Amino acid sequence: MTLVRLGLVQMKMDQAPQKNLQKALKSIQELAKKGAQIIVLPELFLSPYFCQEKNPKTFELAETIPGPTTEALMKVAGETKTVLVVSLFEKTVQKKYFNSIAMIGPDGKLLGTYHKMHIPSLPPDLYAENYYFEKGDEGFKVFDTPYGRIAPMICYDQWFPEGARVAAAKGAQILVYPTAIGWPLMDRAELNTAEHDAWQIIQRSHSIANNVFVTAVNRIGIEGNLNFWGTSFISDPYGRVLAKASTDREENIIVPLDLSVIDSMRAEWPFLDERRIRIE
Amino acid sequence: MTLVRLGLVQMKMDQAPQKNLQKALKSIQELAKKGAQIIVLPELFLSPYFCQEKNPKTFELAETIPGPTTEALMKVAGETKTVLVVSLFEKTVQKKYFNSIAMIGPDGKLLGTYHKMHIPSLPPDLYAENYYFEKGDEGFKVFDTPYGRIAPMICYDQWFPEGARVAAAKGAQILVYPTAIGWPLMDRAELNTAEHDAWQIIQRSHSIANNVFVTAVNRIGIEGNLNFWGTSFISDPYGRVLAKASTDREENIIVPLDLSVIDSMRAEWPFLDERRIRIE
Repeated sequence: MTLVRLGLVQMKMDQAPQKNLQKALKSIQELAKKGAQIIVLPELFLSPYFCQEKNPKTFELAETIPGPTTEALMKVAGETKTVLVVSLFEKTVQKKYFNSIAMIGPDGKLLGTYHKMHIPSLPPDLYAENYYFEKGDEGFKVFDTPYGRIAPMICYDQWFPEGARVAAAKGAQILVYPTAIGWPLMDRAELNTAEHDAWQIIQRSHSIANNVFVTAVNRIGIEGNLNFWGTSFISDPYGRVLAKASTDREENIIVPLDLSVIDSMRAEWPFLDERRIRIE
Repeated sequence: MTLVRLGLVQMKMDQAPQKNLQKALKSIQELAKKGAQIIVLPELFLSPYFCQEKNPKTFELAETIPGPTTEALMKVAGETKTVLVVSLFEKTVQKKYFNSIAMIGPDGKLLGTYHKMHIPSLPPDLYAENYYFEKGDEGFKVFDTPYGRIAPMICYDQWFPEGARVAAAKGAQILVYPTAIGWPLMDRAELNTAEHDAWQIIQRSHSIANNVFVTAVNRIGIEGNLNFWGTSFISDPYGRVLAKASTDREENIIVPLDLSVIDSMRAEWPFLDERRIRIE
């Protein structure tokens, strides 16, 4: 057994970024106290999900990485000896805007960033991310941490088998997807159920196809036209759900992962070795 | 609505190829009488699943396409005006051996063949297909039929997102996987459940990732070291299971498919257009 402990922070967002940051810092400290070694925050955890509207003033929320938020999190990462996966609206020094991950190591240092590769534009009144973010320009990445090799991706990336495949081929053991997804507030009960189920199945399939752990960490609460459905979860290399949060409550979840399952499964099902099309 | 009716033949195999052929022909006629337009037989439906053993005499089962079995099926396809998806142990005129699909059109003509791309070798006492079959040499294919654009793949192919992706990018509306998969007869209840679930999830994920219909058609019955688990099913572009067979009974299933769901789903979730890595 090679055990690592993963912590998920399922949050409801306040209008005020400082309140969201304080809540996240408190959750990280609480999870770390219980033994969490890798902690994942939801997508764009500092604010309401602003991509439902196209508002030029919203660009003021963007910050550099490192920058004030990253630095606050680097400090707590070093204090708690945790790896932190932090989703931020990034403005680069070249004045490009990305939907980004800051990967922070347990020594409190920035390991690097990931720029969301798949940027949704549909439906236009729900997920108009193309107004705010450029498409990721650096491909899929894997970060080698003391607690395992982690591939950060973001929300819409989770619908594309390519990213999961490339990350696993590069050695990822855990795929993490900070997320902001919910049910549109309209009369479409049947589709709402279908989409909520499909969202879990597609991510569990990345576990299976690649023999890796997968986690999605989502927000909750009604904002604008969306009821964010929570359901943060972690699946093992067989696609089995090890833990799953509610659809409507803030929860901090800690899950032990036995990374050795990856190799034992690959001994029977060597999918990565036997695929016929290389897509790195 | 663009309705087509799909028929699945979940079979138990006899030792005698002629008996299996007669049973398949009867099922095809029965399903066609009920309105089926596309009918799918299980993988290597003419015989027990011989790949559990490495036996040089088994090569005598191979036949050319067209050949005696294809011709019997072409005749019934023309009579019933059905598209038939037929899995055969093929020996080519160049004396190469493949695990193949013969695609037969409703005019009774052979549309072409597909050679299984992913050939399993593990576990060696269960799925030693590499002893019998060369790896497919022609890539993934889509056949344009009067009842929709169909991509035939075979069993182990179903674990690889690449094949599904390439087929959908080439225009496939329905992915069909004739299959021979089961539970090993050993004390591993937990893994048996995990594998049976994973097999369904990975295929439903191909529906979701590519906005297409997916069907798997499996055999039943205990043969050698395997208890073939049936569970033939069809999922729609949201990954919803429209019909699913038992784990232990022969069943002929007919399912209406509304192909227009493919386009309505793509209008909201244009995954094929927005993927960042092209893998054709």
